[in-house]
Amino acid sequence: MASKGQSLHAKAGENIFAKNPKVSAELLALTYGAFVHRLIKDDGATTSSASAGSGENAEEVNAILDKMGYNIGCRMVDEFFAKAPQQGLCRDLNDTAKVIGEQAFKMFLGVTAEVSSFDSENKAFSLILRENPLADFVILPAAYANKLWYSNLLCGVIRGALEMLNMKVACYFRKDILRGHDCTEMRVELKEIIKDKYEEDDDEK
Amino acid sequence: MASKGQSLHAKAGENIFAKNPKVSAELLALTYGAFVHRLIKDDGATTSSASAGSGENAEEVNAILDKMGYNIGCRMVDEFFAKAPQQGLCRDLNDTAKVIGEQAFKMFLGVTAEVSSFDSENKAFSLILRENPLADFVILPAAYANKLWYSNLLCGVIRGALEMLNMKVACYFRKDILRGHDCTEMRVELKEIIKDKYEEDDDEK
Repeated sequence: MASKGQSLHAKAGENIFAKNPKVSAELLALTYGAFVHRLIKDDGATTSSASAGSGENAEEVNAILDKMGYNIGCRMVDEFFAKAPQQGLCRDLNDTAKVIGEQAFKMFLGVTAEVSSFDSENKAFSLILRENPLADFVILPAAYANKLWYSNLLCGVIRGALEMLNMKVACYFRKDILRGHDCTEMRVELKEIIKDKYEEDDDEK
Repeated sequence: MASKGQSLHAKAGENIFAKNPKVSAELLALTYGAFVHRLIKDDGATTSSASAGSGENAEEVNAILDKMGYNIGCRMVDEFFAKAPQQGLCRDLNDTAKVIGEQAFKMFLGVTAEVSSFDSENKAFSLILRENPLADFVILPAAYANKLWYSNLLCGVIRGALEMLNMKVACYFRKDILRGHDCTEMRVELKEIIKDKYEEDDDEK
């Protein structure tokens, strides 16, 4: 997040979440909906007034949602480790996938995600959401129906959180119930295990 | 909400909230934070690039948050009546204030708001928040510290919800812990009881 964003969210130490409070999923869904709606309108307005609502800026909105999610994920990972009921060591991507789908989704969104479709190299997997609290109530405007990944924030969150744990991943939606698919599927692909900074420094000597 | 917004949120009938699910307050706080941050940046960009982050657009951001909250409130009021544990008839503004502070805030934000400072005519009251899940982690950027009402969405929500119940109110922040005040105080002023449309029609005959 840029410097202003950081100053908006700087008091991570002193927080009421020590009590792990919950809020209504509907409030989140409606707030997120207002947010996406604003992005759709805004980007239309800044590129060309005629394109507002035409779906032309869908790619851009997808990217913005992913980037915002990334910033959120970078912060939420600490919260997760402070609260998660049990954390065995994640020895491989299988373990990581399970912790995301069963514990992290449950803690933050109140639903679990099924893990499936590992590739042969064990470097990519899918998370299947049967219900998506972010997207409840939503019908995509026709112009965006095949372009917008409405819940793309979630991809960013996963990418950001895993990067804090030294895993560089690509994360993207493959299916979305909002687009008429049978389920909502996010694909996570491990690209690289990032070396710790101090290890790199050692190498340079 | 404009027509596009309506199509984003049109399936109010079929929803998973029948089970009244909850999500992490932190996820809401961070999502809302990203949202406000975006508004601050955006409006700076559309008015003049020099004003981005200068605090000049704070009034505009306050108004946008209020308007979005209004749309959310118009929708959430139904949810509230479907779920509220007990609803006696609200005979006067005293009752209304208590239901908002004790039941509605609890249901949606997980915290209660104290009702205080009724005026002599019983037409205005304050809601005092000791903790505000929307604003946890937040420090306002200096340029916005005395201009932005960070949680102004909440004023809009109250205004929208009450308007659905035929009460036209003004709702605004008087104090905010984020600005260094001792508590967060929202003021609600009843302006008018709106006549039902069909009553008006009767009058016109």
